[in-house]
Amino acid sequence: MTLGPADDGVGRPLGPVVGIVVVAAGSGERLGAGRPKALVEVAGRSLIAHAVAGLGEAGFTSVVVVHTPGEEAAFRAAVAGAGTDAGVEVVLVPGGADRSASVRAGLAALPGDVEVVAVHDAARAFTPPAVLRAVVAAVTGDVVAAAPAVPVADTLKRVDGHRVTGTVDRSELVAVQTPQVFPAAVLRAVATEGASATDELALVEQHLADGRLEGRIVWVPGSARGFKVTVPEDLELAEVFATR
Amino acid sequence: MTLGPADDGVGRPLGPVVGIVVVAAGSGERLGAGRPKALVEVAGRSLIAHAVAGLGEAGFTSVVVVHTPGEEAAFRAAVAGAGTDAGVEVVLVPGGADRSASVRAGLAALPGDVEVVAVHDAARAFTPPAVLRAVVAAVTGDVVAAAPAVPVADTLKRVDGHRVTGTVDRSELVAVQTPQVFPAAVLRAVATEGASATDELALVEQHLADGRLEGRIVWVPGSARGFKVTVPEDLELAEVFATR
Repeated sequence: MTLGPADDGVGRPLGPVVGIVVVAAGSGERLGAGRPKALVEVAGRSLIAHAVAGLGEAGFTSVVVVHTPGEEAAFRAAVAGAGTDAGVEVVLVPGGADRSASVRAGLAALPGDVEVVAVHDAARAFTPPAVLRAVVAAVTGDVVAAAPAVPVADTLKRVDGHRVTGTVDRSELVAVQTPQVFPAAVLRAVATEGASATDELALVEQHLADGRLEGRIVWVPGSARGFKVTVPEDLELAEVFATR
Repeated sequence: MTLGPADDGVGRPLGPVVGIVVVAAGSGERLGAGRPKALVEVAGRSLIAHAVAGLGEAGFTSVVVVHTPGEEAAFRAAVAGAGTDAGVEVVLVPGGADRSASVRAGLAALPGDVEVVAVHDAARAFTPPAVLRAVVAAVTGDVVAAAPAVPVADTLKRVDGHRVTGTVDRSELVAVQTPQVFPAAVLRAVATEGASATDELALVEQHLADGRLEGRIVWVPGSARGFKVTVPEDLELAEVFATR
């Protein structure tokens, strides 16, 4: 699979031109590290640097990092050298007022010729390159969105306050990760001002539900390594994944 | 809170007599360790020994370990000394054909005077003592079952095969852990031969739904340390929790 234009020998590019927006504008408040989450170091390297290096391994070259506003210098230092061996070029843009605004800012900073756009969380810095490639490859035909997902391991209960009211059938559920990947035109159409949802996939779900869009959303097998660093304990697991 | 009969000075016991059944009969196949999961060592000590030591710290003294059939000697060696400082007495019984049969075997081995019974997974060996105590304390009044639970951190999607069909509202969901705790009479009434469910709480849910039982099921805040060791990566996280 190619993540940029390849050449078939007669000058026509093969495969879509892929760009990725890495949302790294989180405050990291729940992590309690006193600095933006993406700048927290794991095994001697910031989360955003781990994330960018992984993207390079997967073949991404066009990477936009949406950083915490006012922290451009720190982010520039953090990503310096990450993925450069693999040809990664990082563009930094400041995040917006909410996730949706940050995604729009990232999208606007991608080259105009990208045909497929991935939206990734910097906090999922250890997503394996094979998963990154598989989810991009899934966006083909009538697929309007794709994401990695893992089975729901926990027993889930419905609750009403402190009361447990029932058990959820988890056989028809998955836990989604990122990157979530879209034809560029689809993401541009759904990530509009005022659009708000749990994730970008949900924006596409809304457009499919009310007929503004047609197509399928699919998931590909994710990995335990694609977990999201959120609370302090997660840094210890991240350390394991960063070093093995 | 007392986990055994206390004395109010005039010879009447205060607080319920609490017993705990630790289900440790799993094969550990997904862990790939080539031996029963509860015997896998983390930080130099088997999971079942970690679990029993934690129960001792929480004040449990009457502990039944339901072990993998045919492995009694190995389990006896594994739990030798665990929790004895805290007064824990471990009774070993072989597991049955399924989880429900294992729970019944454990229940039958508890002293006849237990009033409250907890059912715990050996694979959740690092559940903090404070959580163990809180969930037992929750079984009072019209509460017929209690369990620790944590918020659902992942974004959950409904799927149909490889297709994603929608987003689940996780604001009314929790992920339950163990121990699940019951008045002894309630657990005896629901854990009957042929009874089958995701967990013991679900057996109580069934009895509440069809009117065979009245009361409330409640949850108390669980902990990340109450996670279930299932796949090899989990052993690395277990190592972290075992040593900090």
